[in-house]
Amino acid sequence: MSATNPESTESPACENHTHGYGENKAKYLARMRRIEGQARGIHRMIDEDQYCIDILTQVSAVRSALENVALALLEDHIDHCVADAVEEGGEMAEEKLTEAMDAIRRMVKS
Amino acid sequence: MSATNPESTESPACENHTHGYGENKAKYLARMRRIEGQARGIHRMIDEDQYCIDILTQVSAVRSALENVALALLEDHIDHCVADAVEEGGEMAEEKLTEAMDAIRRMVKS
Amino acid sequence: MSATNPESTESPACENHTHGYGENKAKYLARMRRIEGQARGIHRMIDEDQYCIDILTQVSAVRSALENVALALLEDHIDHCVADAVEEGGEMAEEKLTEAMDAIRRMVKS
Amino acid sequence: MSATNPESTESPACENHTHGYGENKAKYLARMRRIEGQARGIHRMIDEDQYCIDILTQVSAVRSALENVALALLEDHIDHCVADAVEEGGEMAEEKLTEAMDAIRRMVKS
Repeated sequence: MSATNPESTESPACENHTHGYGENKAKYLARMRRIEGQARGIHRMIDEDQYCIDILTQVSAVRSALENVALALLEDHIDHCVADAVEEGGEMAEEKLTEAMDAIRRMVKS
Repeated sequence: MSATNPESTESPACENHTHGYGENKAKYLARMRRIEGQARGIHRMIDEDQYCIDILTQVSAVRSALENVALALLEDHIDHCVADAVEEGGEMAEEKLTEAMDAIRRMVKS
Repeated sequence: MSATNPESTESPACENHTHGYGENKAKYLARMRRIEGQARGIHRMIDEDQYCIDILTQVSAVRSALENVALALLEDHIDHCVADAVEEGGEMAEEKLTEAMDAIRRMVKS
Repeated sequence: MSATNPESTESPACENHTHGYGENKAKYLARMRRIEGQARGIHRMIDEDQYCIDILTQVSAVRSALENVALALLEDHIDHCVADAVEEGGEMAEEKLTEAMDAIRRMVKS
């Protein structure tokens, strides 16, 4: 559970529920570790004065990798957290649907 | 000079020329260090089972940060490497213009 | 109802249900009419040999207008068609959630 | 020439020069006519209450078509207008490079 993050936007009512991504946690951790490594790789390319176009190619690759992580996280979230809340109905459903749309908007615009 | 990268797509004729981003190298290194830290932060959020929406917000932020690094690198490259090659004219100009357009295409599509 | 479109991907079970965008239909029609006019305007700019950068500015504006129509349609769809299906549960819910994610993926990648 | 557009951002010095897209004008006009038709098609789908997901699929297709028109226009512009200006050097080169980067930024962010 995520009681460790006081800035969490998650409503208290959900705090004891397992997040959609829980089942694939190990995969997500491995993907983010790889993305972190790619970012470090770009840092090294700049440090070694490598060619601009080669660096730009790597930056586009990391952006695509992040996009795919975001789409997978969103799918898990919609399939679990949002679907559960909609089944329960009421205010929680409303809140989850609005939250999901705001996340989709940020994703489309980033 | 980037003799250290055998996979570089840079044509030999350019290898002794300083890249456009050279003047802002320290800034680029600091930005990439921050992006690497943000990626590590997302890894920690997943590890701590934090809320999906909060993680998605961070992923969008890192994507935007990478987009801005890419746009700055592209501007430096066009203003220096591409402009120099176009001034010299001939095949090198053609090559640099094509390369820059391919990088822009990847950027727009990533 | 959309019985007029044999190619519709909508499952028969939904055909008699009003789509989420129904309440805002007039607005969507007006927005698409404007976008159609903008596309015609770009055609005219090209025909009149107008400046490339001015044309590119208009193309970016139409892309953004379409993006906002898509986000509004998606929100209406999720709030109505998807939410209704999830409340009913079963296979229909699964189908609607998968469909919505595929549409989001196309949107993020277009 | 584009003397017909008082709002043109093109500097007077360029007005008598043929734009990069001139050679492919017929193709661009045909592509924009098709995009206009697709926009009209989306208008009709909404008018006929067609399924949200089918409409979203068409909106993504039109966005992609516009993106490809923009990338082709940009390539023609860089290969001709920008390259010519850079060869001439001086203030005009500076102006064209800045203008091109601003257009690329709008394209990446739209």
